[in-house]
Amino acid sequence: MGGDRGMQVTVPAAKEALREHPDLKLILVGPLEELRAELRRSGLREDDRLALHHASQVVGMDEPPAQALRSKKDSSMRVAINLVKSGTAQACVSAGNTGALMATARFVLKTLPGIDRPAIITAWPTMHGHVHVLDLGANVDSSPEQLLQFGIMGSLLVGAIEHNPAPKVCLLNIGVEDIKGNETVKRASELFRQSGLNYGGYVEGDEVFAGNADVVVCDGFVGNVAMKACEGLARMIAQMMRESFTRNLLSRVAGLIAMPVMRSFRRRVDPRRYNGASLVGLNGIVIKSHGGADAYGFQNSIRVAVAAIRNEVPQIIGSRLSSMQVRGASV
Amino acid sequence: MGGDRGMQVTVPAAKEALREHPDLKLILVGPLEELRAELRRSGLREDDRLALHHASQVVGMDEPPAQALRSKKDSSMRVAINLVKSGTAQACVSAGNTGALMATARFVLKTLPGIDRPAIITAWPTMHGHVHVLDLGANVDSSPEQLLQFGIMGSLLVGAIEHNPAPKVCLLNIGVEDIKGNETVKRASELFRQSGLNYGGYVEGDEVFAGNADVVVCDGFVGNVAMKACEGLARMIAQMMRESFTRNLLSRVAGLIAMPVMRSFRRRVDPRRYNGASLVGLNGIVIKSHGGADAYGFQNSIRVAVAAIRNEVPQIIGSRLSSMQVRGASV
Repeated sequence: MGGDRGMQVTVPAAKEALREHPDLKLILVGPLEELRAELRRSGLREDDRLALHHASQVVGMDEPPAQALRSKKDSSMRVAINLVKSGTAQACVSAGNTGALMATARFVLKTLPGIDRPAIITAWPTMHGHVHVLDLGANVDSSPEQLLQFGIMGSLLVGAIEHNPAPKVCLLNIGVEDIKGNETVKRASELFRQSGLNYGGYVEGDEVFAGNADVVVCDGFVGNVAMKACEGLARMIAQMMRESFTRNLLSRVAGLIAMPVMRSFRRRVDPRRYNGASLVGLNGIVIKSHGGADAYGFQNSIRVAVAAIRNEVPQIIGSRLSSMQVRGASV
Repeated sequence: MGGDRGMQVTVPAAKEALREHPDLKLILVGPLEELRAELRRSGLREDDRLALHHASQVVGMDEPPAQALRSKKDSSMRVAINLVKSGTAQACVSAGNTGALMATARFVLKTLPGIDRPAIITAWPTMHGHVHVLDLGANVDSSPEQLLQFGIMGSLLVGAIEHNPAPKVCLLNIGVEDIKGNETVKRASELFRQSGLNYGGYVEGDEVFAGNADVVVCDGFVGNVAMKACEGLARMIAQMMRESFTRNLLSRVAGLIAMPVMRSFRRRVDPRRYNGASLVGLNGIVIKSHGGADAYGFQNSIRVAVAAIRNEVPQIIGSRLSSMQVRGASV
């Protein structure tokens, strides 16, 4: 029930998701009275596919994770993750505070054997489809061994979801030659080479969008900065384009005529279609929606959760981790 | 004479630059015979504003910097930087191998007192103008003290060029709250607070484009990845837009009608207008053009050099460094 816009986003998204996935069952977690009021506004009612579950607290978007973990034991976030832990729910989808969600999920669900810390992974659009990138901000100062764990988790996740037996995994670097990069990335590259992964070497920032890799691995600081810089650039381009097409009468007319084409273009790069990051490496499925997502974007996060459930992502990652060189990867 | 396209780019750019700046004098450095042939093709001749200087070697775009430094003592890059060292030229502009340019410039020109290593700084477009970002790849694993040096150099450079007495300097981070980020950035933030700079705190990747900072400071690994990711995204958007407007007859007609608007929009975000990064922190002016720049882009790098000369950037940075807390910043 979190996120910047709360249940005015999540309830309409739930309505659409129930329509989209006929076998989906949803539990909405939050303050019951408010949830019931929002259901009424959206023309929804509780039934065997839509249940409500009370939670009296809400974690603030800027609340420190440790404080949320300690003092918000009845937050919608905590209660929802508890439902995954108990097996009542198969996945948790939240638009709330990322740090608190990560800390709570890790505390309640625990990481898979051989994994030190979960990572945040999501799909980015490319020229030819999409690429999964991790870590996007769960970990800073990652060691080479942690980068290898990210690579293994990313490879297994993409393998499970896309039925791709050997996804091409690349390391993000500032040059493709062996001598480039920082010490951590250079040592990680050695580990990747020995890992049994389908390792494609280094990629630079611009090549991420070229579509030559299935998984791109980086430290969470780097990944988060790159992701947000791209978000900021995309927003600026959209804003400047709007300004260009509304400058005067002539440009407005041109804008009207170009609109259908612009719409079809926008659909291809619409960030809402890529909303929904997986917290991978946990004993359970937790999906993070962008805090500012609208109902259409949040619905996509539910879609990501459905795909993870259908393809048994945590089970597959858990069972295959033991057969890979993850021993060498644990620190 | 380097770069991916060599003198077919640099000579036409030189021609335009001479026309643009009536008081500019240029020395083209490279193999004399080839240079003369290219001048003829471009309808240029040697005179008191355009001189040629022979250099027998070329540094390869993928050549390791140490090797270039050791074995290419008569490369166009090395000779051009020597001309700056001797005072024959006031600035060197190169589209060549970044690592080799950095290593050679540092070896020949030396860093300013109190500066450990030069940094790469350039302007990015924002909603309201532009922002200078550094480091963009000269340094990896930067210490908090080095980040402070970047901040000081960035502040002095922007101050000199834009006659802004107190540019707002921000640190790139993955959250704006004090608890966010890695240890290096947190410690750097403390140093910035005590530095006497106009420190604006943390900015996230997307806020770089919002235009609220004059200078954004980050480690070179992070900055390079973010810059290239943005380049890759911009290229993908441009490509997808071209595809959208050429899909069928109707979209082609819409494209024709929208073209003048699209052109004016493109001018605002044209990366060529932002081509030309300064290697700041040296005893001299060295400007790095994108290796793939065309003549229009390379001409902008010359423009950046002209602005640095006119505003006496190295002299101002050198003389003001001593009056700032750079003692605490040297490691």
